[in-house]
Amino acid sequence: MSAHSEFSLIQHYFEHLTSQRDDVLLGIGDDCALLQCPADHAIAVSIDTLVEGVHFFSDVEPESLGHKSLAVGLSDLAAMGATPAWFTLALSLPEANEKWLRGFSKGLANLATEYGIQLVGGDTTRGPLTISIQVHGIVKSGQALRRDGAQEGDLIYVSGCLGDAGAAVQLKLQQLDESSLQNEDKYYLQQRLERPTPRIALGQKLSGLATAAIDISDGLLADLGHIVEKSNVGARVELAQLPLSSALMKLDRTLAEQLALTSGDDYQLCFTVPPENVERLENLLGNQCHQIGVLTTGIAISCFNQQGELIEIKGTGYDHFPA
Amino acid sequence: MSAHSEFSLIQHYFEHLTSQRDDVLLGIGDDCALLQCPADHAIAVSIDTLVEGVHFFSDVEPESLGHKSLAVGLSDLAAMGATPAWFTLALSLPEANEKWLRGFSKGLANLATEYGIQLVGGDTTRGPLTISIQVHGIVKSGQALRRDGAQEGDLIYVSGCLGDAGAAVQLKLQQLDESSLQNEDKYYLQQRLERPTPRIALGQKLSGLATAAIDISDGLLADLGHIVEKSNVGARVELAQLPLSSALMKLDRTLAEQLALTSGDDYQLCFTVPPENVERLENLLGNQCHQIGVLTTGIAISCFNQQGELIEIKGTGYDHFPA
Repeated sequence: MSAHSEFSLIQHYFEHLTSQRDDVLLGIGDDCALLQCPADHAIAVSIDTLVEGVHFFSDVEPESLGHKSLAVGLSDLAAMGATPAWFTLALSLPEANEKWLRGFSKGLANLATEYGIQLVGGDTTRGPLTISIQVHGIVKSGQALRRDGAQEGDLIYVSGCLGDAGAAVQLKLQQLDESSLQNEDKYYLQQRLERPTPRIALGQKLSGLATAAIDISDGLLADLGHIVEKSNVGARVELAQLPLSSALMKLDRTLAEQLALTSGDDYQLCFTVPPENVERLENLLGNQCHQIGVLTTGIAISCFNQQGELIEIKGTGYDHFPA
Repeated sequence: MSAHSEFSLIQHYFEHLTSQRDDVLLGIGDDCALLQCPADHAIAVSIDTLVEGVHFFSDVEPESLGHKSLAVGLSDLAAMGATPAWFTLALSLPEANEKWLRGFSKGLANLATEYGIQLVGGDTTRGPLTISIQVHGIVKSGQALRRDGAQEGDLIYVSGCLGDAGAAVQLKLQQLDESSLQNEDKYYLQQRLERPTPRIALGQKLSGLATAAIDISDGLLADLGHIVEKSNVGARVELAQLPLSSALMKLDRTLAEQLALTSGDDYQLCFTVPPENVERLENLLGNQCHQIGVLTTGIAISCFNQQGELIEIKGTGYDHFPA
């Protein structure tokens, strides 16, 4: 029963893995890190926790877990249009397993290097495997993408295929009829669950084009629901326009749509664009984005099939503490 | 197996408890918070995790736990001479117990209000009780107190009584001969463990006076050891000069000194002051601080008793993952 260990355990594995940023005045190894924010910029911060058995399977490769632990935070920065800068790591471990630590650090460091984000501090404690990462990004004053700027008539876009991570979870839990899937489909789905790609470059391009944005961590309907709620609008989603991967297309269509609408962990962006910006958007992004609906009056989300029939959807995302 | 719950659980309990800072451009409720750092300042950040059964007893009052969870981070800001600004909270809970949440939030919010630090984001997940808090402070460029600026000849100070929290842990574990303690002594010790006071105002005053500072979370010898290591100096500590509370003075003297030197969780500051600054320090702080030794050549810490004899000390702080 005592306080804090130093962070030397993680630092040891990280030392030669990450580059140094000029705006880190003091990094790991003091009571605090000291960071320099450029003038005319705001700092965007987000913290996320992953718990073994809740957010990831116990047998996940440590390198994949390292990747994903940082990717979920980078995805939040992407949703604000921010540029990644620094992160901290609070890690609870049942034991200091060297192989696990080496793999975890490698996955974390590779993604950190790819996005130019530097580890500046952390805490390592003994306890049930729990990973909290706080990311810090910088964004030019007044340029951040928020959830509350959407307006009736704006078109709703998503940045890529939905439902893949949810299918991978069902596959792992043997809840999916996988008879139609090839091995490469299963591998693809697993990668989408374990190695999501934060859409940083896309988020930065959306500044000035999109009126609102969010990353899809809890499922499209749940996350679009936050835009709808914060912006005080309604939404109409066309099921036929949901982007589905070729792997997901091999499943029953209703199941695939259900996964695309309600399962989480895809880490694509959902954003809204006024009609007058659509041409600029499509010139800039080409087929990277998919229009899936439009914002309406009201405060509800309605889903329609290809025949224009209203479809009721069960389950709208994950709630850790349902009422 | 899915991603992130929203933070509404905690926000619900916090909504009316904390004040709003002008430099929070966007608070809880988006993918990221947006924060504004004043010009000519750096941001000081630190993250700490408390795990049930490792850092706190399972039967601790939730209000005390809320206090302590934030106090340990504020103490890190104090050790840098920084002014508290914002914090985030990542909370894993086995269940959403309303009474627990209300008490925890109250303890957290009261301390946050006292120090003017605003909750700007977080994550609530289901899992073993684990609390990670990241604090952010601001400090004028070039004015932060670090661990690496101490020099031979500097005097070593601590900001108040040591060993009380360690005694409280031993008391709780029934490892202490408590026959000499009154009920008020026991209450005092318990409060020192559960309700530590972050030395923010003191840390700010030390800027320009102290050459190095650290907060005592792992025990005096362990934490002074970090100054010694980073500054490449040695240290001589006088056991007779250790500030001990009247409660601790009622215990066996050797035990009391052992606790003061090696037990953690006191959250006083340890700092070093060059002889030419001592008069200014004492004018400014009076008897708030206690000189306990001097920095020497070499890289070791030696402890001496009143007779000038070198004393060997067993155990120099807590290591979560001993080699």
